[in-house]
Amino acid sequence: MTKLDVVAFDADDTLWVNETYFRKAEQEFCDMMAVYMPKEKAAAELFAIEMKNMSIYGYGVKAFTLSMLEAALVISNNTISPTDIQKVIDLGKDILSQPVELLNGVEEVLDTLAGKYKLVVATKGDLLDQERKIKASGVEHYFHHTEIMSNKQTDDYRRLLSQLKCEPTNFMMIGNSLKSDVLPVIELGGQGVHIPFHVTWGHEVVADETSLPDFIRLDSITEILPYLT
Amino acid sequence: MTKLDVVAFDADDTLWVNETYFRKAEQEFCDMMAVYMPKEKAAAELFAIEMKNMSIYGYGVKAFTLSMLEAALVISNNTISPTDIQKVIDLGKDILSQPVELLNGVEEVLDTLAGKYKLVVATKGDLLDQERKIKASGVEHYFHHTEIMSNKQTDDYRRLLSQLKCEPTNFMMIGNSLKSDVLPVIELGGQGVHIPFHVTWGHEVVADETSLPDFIRLDSITEILPYLT
Repeated sequence: MTKLDVVAFDADDTLWVNETYFRKAEQEFCDMMAVYMPKEKAAAELFAIEMKNMSIYGYGVKAFTLSMLEAALVISNNTISPTDIQKVIDLGKDILSQPVELLNGVEEVLDTLAGKYKLVVATKGDLLDQERKIKASGVEHYFHHTEIMSNKQTDDYRRLLSQLKCEPTNFMMIGNSLKSDVLPVIELGGQGVHIPFHVTWGHEVVADETSLPDFIRLDSITEILPYLT
Repeated sequence: MTKLDVVAFDADDTLWVNETYFRKAEQEFCDMMAVYMPKEKAAAELFAIEMKNMSIYGYGVKAFTLSMLEAALVISNNTISPTDIQKVIDLGKDILSQPVELLNGVEEVLDTLAGKYKLVVATKGDLLDQERKIKASGVEHYFHHTEIMSNKQTDDYRRLLSQLKCEPTNFMMIGNSLKSDVLPVIELGGQGVHIPFHVTWGHEVVADETSLPDFIRLDSITEILPYLT
């Protein structure tokens, strides 16, 4: 592993808490919808609408809010009140106003690796929201480069590596999503490190884990240090 | 001008039509709101809500759609119907589905300058939507780099130039917004070229044009060629 040049980190649920806020908003949304249908069914409607809208809205809080609004219309069969529409808009705004809570060990890891490798943030989501979180995180100064990506498929990583002038074999990506952080990087010839977060959004779940390539799986971010120091 | 290294272009209303689609959606929105208040007043309410939301939503179609929805609740005094809420959501989706229409002369200019300079796109807006437009434009291959920025103030250009490893004196920015494309670049010591589009969003209007620094103002993009060839 001595030839590694760039160590890239996913941001949401790898450096700081994120999915927890989305799931809390979704829970409150489903509570509001409980007068129309069971919560599990409302959650499934919302997820279906998020997937339908993915190709035009992409990732992030604004996309999630717009999909919640559309789901509220569908679930209520167009009977939802304007004040409830405002409540749904506010659920989205609440996510955008959450403090940034670093996960355990993140600062220690970044502080240990800075200077040894080029450290990069590679994340999806709303441009402005992700920039806000990176600034508020207190760890921005450790990073050589921040890339906010519209998607994290193999071609997206290929472009990122080209921009960083880094060969795949010199690249390691660390993140909580097998689908977005680990598998596409391994496909390119880089190294993928998986650190599961306790909640995973349905869209990021890998259906069949039986025939996966080799990768490092850790319980906590500090466990990467023996591999890199 | 022989030492110029990077020529950067704004995208919306510089390379292709954009504001026209936003203004058409706004017109349709105000038509819908005409049962509640005069159209001009509805437009002013919408603009005020867009400005209030700017710090958390940023630029782009999703931010615009969410602000239209909030404005519809305010303007109707919480009496708007769910079907009209869906119509507002659809106004936003329509903008995201518009074809990309290059402005006159764009392809000729890019074709002439490619190879002579590093050509860059520097634009604001939704990440995914701007990527969609760049891909659909047919001119992506002329560009060395595309940067989708959350804002275009002096510090944002400073970061871009650092990333491009380009000195301000070797940088030219061409765009339709004095406020976002021209003045911050001149402040950094670069060159700003203004090509007004026939419609300018209120947020991009410079209030006082009496004491501006020197910059090149053109009627059409092809007029830049004598300066650069």
